[in-house]
Amino acid sequence: MVKKASESLVVMTELVLPNDTNNFGNLMGGRLMYWMDIAAALAAMKHCAAPVVTASVDNISFETPIKIGNVVHIEAKVTRAFNSSMEVHMNVWGEDAIQQYRYKSNEAYYTFVALDPNGKPRSINALEPETDDEKKLFEGALRRRQIRLILGGKMKPEDADELKALFVK
Amino acid sequence: MVKKASESLVVMTELVLPNDTNNFGNLMGGRLMYWMDIAAALAAMKHCAAPVVTASVDNISFETPIKIGNVVHIEAKVTRAFNSSMEVHMNVWGEDAIQQYRYKSNEAYYTFVALDPNGKPRSINALEPETDDEKKLFEGALRRRQIRLILGGKMKPEDADELKALFVK
Amino acid sequence: MVKKASESLVVMTELVLPNDTNNFGNLMGGRLMYWMDIAAALAAMKHCAAPVVTASVDNISFETPIKIGNVVHIEAKVTRAFNSSMEVHMNVWGEDAIQQYRYKSNEAYYTFVALDPNGKPRSINALEPETDDEKKLFEGALRRRQIRLILGGKMKPEDADELKALFVK
Amino acid sequence: MVKKASESLVVMTELVLPNDTNNFGNLMGGRLMYWMDIAAALAAMKHCAAPVVTASVDNISFETPIKIGNVVHIEAKVTRAFNSSMEVHMNVWGEDAIQQYRYKSNEAYYTFVALDPNGKPRSINALEPETDDEKKLFEGALRRRQIRLILGGKMKPEDADELKALFVK
Amino acid sequence: MVKKASESLVVMTELVLPNDTNNFGNLMGGRLMYWMDIAAALAAMKHCAAPVVTASVDNISFETPIKIGNVVHIEAKVTRAFNSSMEVHMNVWGEDAIQQYRYKSNEAYYTFVALDPNGKPRSINALEPETDDEKKLFEGALRRRQIRLILGGKMKPEDADELKALFVK
Amino acid sequence: MVKKASESLVVMTELVLPNDTNNFGNLMGGRLMYWMDIAAALAAMKHCAAPVVTASVDNISFETPIKIGNVVHIEAKVTRAFNSSMEVHMNVWGEDAIQQYRYKSNEAYYTFVALDPNGKPRSINALEPETDDEKKLFEGALRRRQIRLILGGKMKPEDADELKALFVK
Repeated sequence: MVKKASESLVVMTELVLPNDTNNFGNLMGGRLMYWMDIAAALAAMKHCAAPVVTASVDNISFETPIKIGNVVHIEAKVTRAFNSSMEVHMNVWGEDAIQQYRYKSNEAYYTFVALDPNGKPRSINALEPETDDEKKLFEGALRRRQIRLILGGKMKPEDADELKALFVK
Repeated sequence: MVKKASESLVVMTELVLPNDTNNFGNLMGGRLMYWMDIAAALAAMKHCAAPVVTASVDNISFETPIKIGNVVHIEAKVTRAFNSSMEVHMNVWGEDAIQQYRYKSNEAYYTFVALDPNGKPRSINALEPETDDEKKLFEGALRRRQIRLILGGKMKPEDADELKALFVK
Repeated sequence: MVKKASESLVVMTELVLPNDTNNFGNLMGGRLMYWMDIAAALAAMKHCAAPVVTASVDNISFETPIKIGNVVHIEAKVTRAFNSSMEVHMNVWGEDAIQQYRYKSNEAYYTFVALDPNGKPRSINALEPETDDEKKLFEGALRRRQIRLILGGKMKPEDADELKALFVK
Repeated sequence: MVKKASESLVVMTELVLPNDTNNFGNLMGGRLMYWMDIAAALAAMKHCAAPVVTASVDNISFETPIKIGNVVHIEAKVTRAFNSSMEVHMNVWGEDAIQQYRYKSNEAYYTFVALDPNGKPRSINALEPETDDEKKLFEGALRRRQIRLILGGKMKPEDADELKALFVK
Repeated sequence: MVKKASESLVVMTELVLPNDTNNFGNLMGGRLMYWMDIAAALAAMKHCAAPVVTASVDNISFETPIKIGNVVHIEAKVTRAFNSSMEVHMNVWGEDAIQQYRYKSNEAYYTFVALDPNGKPRSINALEPETDDEKKLFEGALRRRQIRLILGGKMKPEDADELKALFVK
Repeated sequence: MVKKASESLVVMTELVLPNDTNNFGNLMGGRLMYWMDIAAALAAMKHCAAPVVTASVDNISFETPIKIGNVVHIEAKVTRAFNSSMEVHMNVWGEDAIQQYRYKSNEAYYTFVALDPNGKPRSINALEPETDDEKKLFEGALRRRQIRLILGGKMKPEDADELKALFVK
């Protein structure tokens, strides 16, 4: 069975409370990663209809801090399914509802593995991208996977054909 | 002023409670990243004696899940200081105290920026590695920084000399 | 200025964790009302661009319980704006992602008051409904307001013309 | 078996901490409803000696906000038992211990259903009111139940004899 | 001004949720001490009408564990006021509402200091015991205070006349 | 089997967040006792390799308050093992990372009982102190145990030979 990328969409909205913030009244990065993990896990479960565990998190760069009292919006969608794992892409915005001002905070990729009832990886549905954005994310997923495998020490850089092309013209 | 890597060491111990776990009774990845963010921020603050914010998180791969009722050990230490940012390395173990069994769970690099009282980046102490491990982490920090800049879209792959050497012999 | 109902839409997604549940492993009503209060407050703030406080909550009937490990979806939208108060309507669904089964849990109306910087009620934008559903909710808002005022002891039943018509043909 | 209203009394005291408050440093309505749900559920369980679930919440009007650092007092007591459901009445006060000032915040009615071990509604003890206040609450319980059934769409307004009398003299 | 012991009474009721329990499903001692600290601080504030900080906690012995899903009842009352400090006595019960069974869990004494707006100790009201229990607690307070001072290294055992009498007939 | 004191060492590091503090922005005593309970329980479990429950807490005196935004360091180590119970000693420091200032906050003794799978006390390893500090704590443990038994009403003062010597020269 093939499922569409859009079927896995999860939209999460959270309010930044005092205990979520650092000395500057900004959302702590760790708290945001916690919310992102739940949003992404739910998107992955919607795609594969099975319990999932977080396998890895790609480089995250925290661009614009989100203030106390502001709102956090997370949109999570599966980009591509492999044998038993899925890559989930997220966009994160902050919003100051009083100033009616919404700003991009950061972007991230989390990877999840689907498990059978014994806790072993199980095969999952393929994913079909539809929009241009979904197709671009689908295609980039292979390259990001090579980076993950290299950075995790599971692939040699010289075997990563897609990546090598970036460095060697 | 130069500070030693060992002066920034932070050891954190947490107990995995029911609300920290997924369907399988394993610690959720997001909860662990939250604790790691606090441990790493404290290590960074010990080095630079200033408030810090999370700038980025490198690829994290979750190898061995940590069970409910088990203990999480996080050891965080600054590896290298740049102008106003620091890289922090963490080792994470799980421990089943009843079985007297301790296992490596994962490893990670977080980067923090030191801020002045107006919330602008400020310059920080240099860091001096002493042990062989600290020296190895210190040297690798430049290469990981290039990866971060490339993955964050702030450096062109062809300008990353250290990285290029990995792909092109 | 007039704002559209759809501009206030807030979508919230939460995962039911162990501490949110009663003896039967079902989401506690009070926990759900807490999340609904935040979702509705954010919708109200998006409409009026000012801080808000909860003024009242209408009768809520909890139809279908939401299980531990399931997902809670809340959709909140302002139905009508009065002088300084707004009525927010919410639909709540539970979702078992593994069974791919989504079910209506309940529905509710919360009312919020917009405050100025001194904490006094301030006037707010009018609201314009567009879809048929929005128009129906907009029209019913007057009747629900009479019920609120009667139940809160601020209006005599015999003055509630809209309501009287329900009882006396 | 018949139990007295006073046997179900539950007194709850909570301190308003930073994470419980909105932008104005006042207790969020949703947090209060969460505490009220637990207080009322405990009163219901004391009456019926069985697990209970929240069936519905009547209109709540939030009169006086409770400040951060103040104390919340909730007194919950069952007003009347029906076949398998109970109505619980609550009074809520705020208290500024430093100013030695106690103020009424609001009042509410929650309804609970008692469940057997299979999660099905089970019959419960009758309730006997003793004081004048308890008798008044006991008598009003029928009228409030009609309102609940009408507002929940389970009774036609014209069949609600007790209510009709309010509108038609 | 003299205030009565009974004026400081605080009654707290909490439900034991999953995150409050150890491997055996019993309330963790530390969680109970947290609730007791808040209950006792509120009793102390009611007596002295000033902010207070915890100065010390006497030996606590945990007799009967309280089960998950059970209720915790704490009754706190000031026993005696000294210059700027107060001793608060607490009784703690567990209750299984379904089995209609209430059991004594433990008893404790916490001591608080009243602070002025600069955070310095300030003088407080005297306390007048009325019932026999209150009088007994009032009288024992001096002896417990000597134990505290000796155990805290602030008094020499040979100067503790009240205590010496216990050991030397 | 005999285990060394040092094998039970647990180091815990926590950050003081807004919800952990009282009106003065200082860590609440009850919150600290909660963290200490977990740190000490983990040390006890490391010694006896079995689940443990808190049996008692000795007098704690809170000397120096720990500020919001500061760090709490707890070091817990078993001092001596009896038949089925262990005494754990803790040192607690606060640290202001920005001022690079570390201060002793307090010290405490908690006692734990090891349980078998039926929840009954079970016999445990003996403990061998090595350093001078460990030996001093090991020896004092008997005297503190007598105080505990007397204060808990389980031993008559005149039978406490070690203690009597303190009062009678």
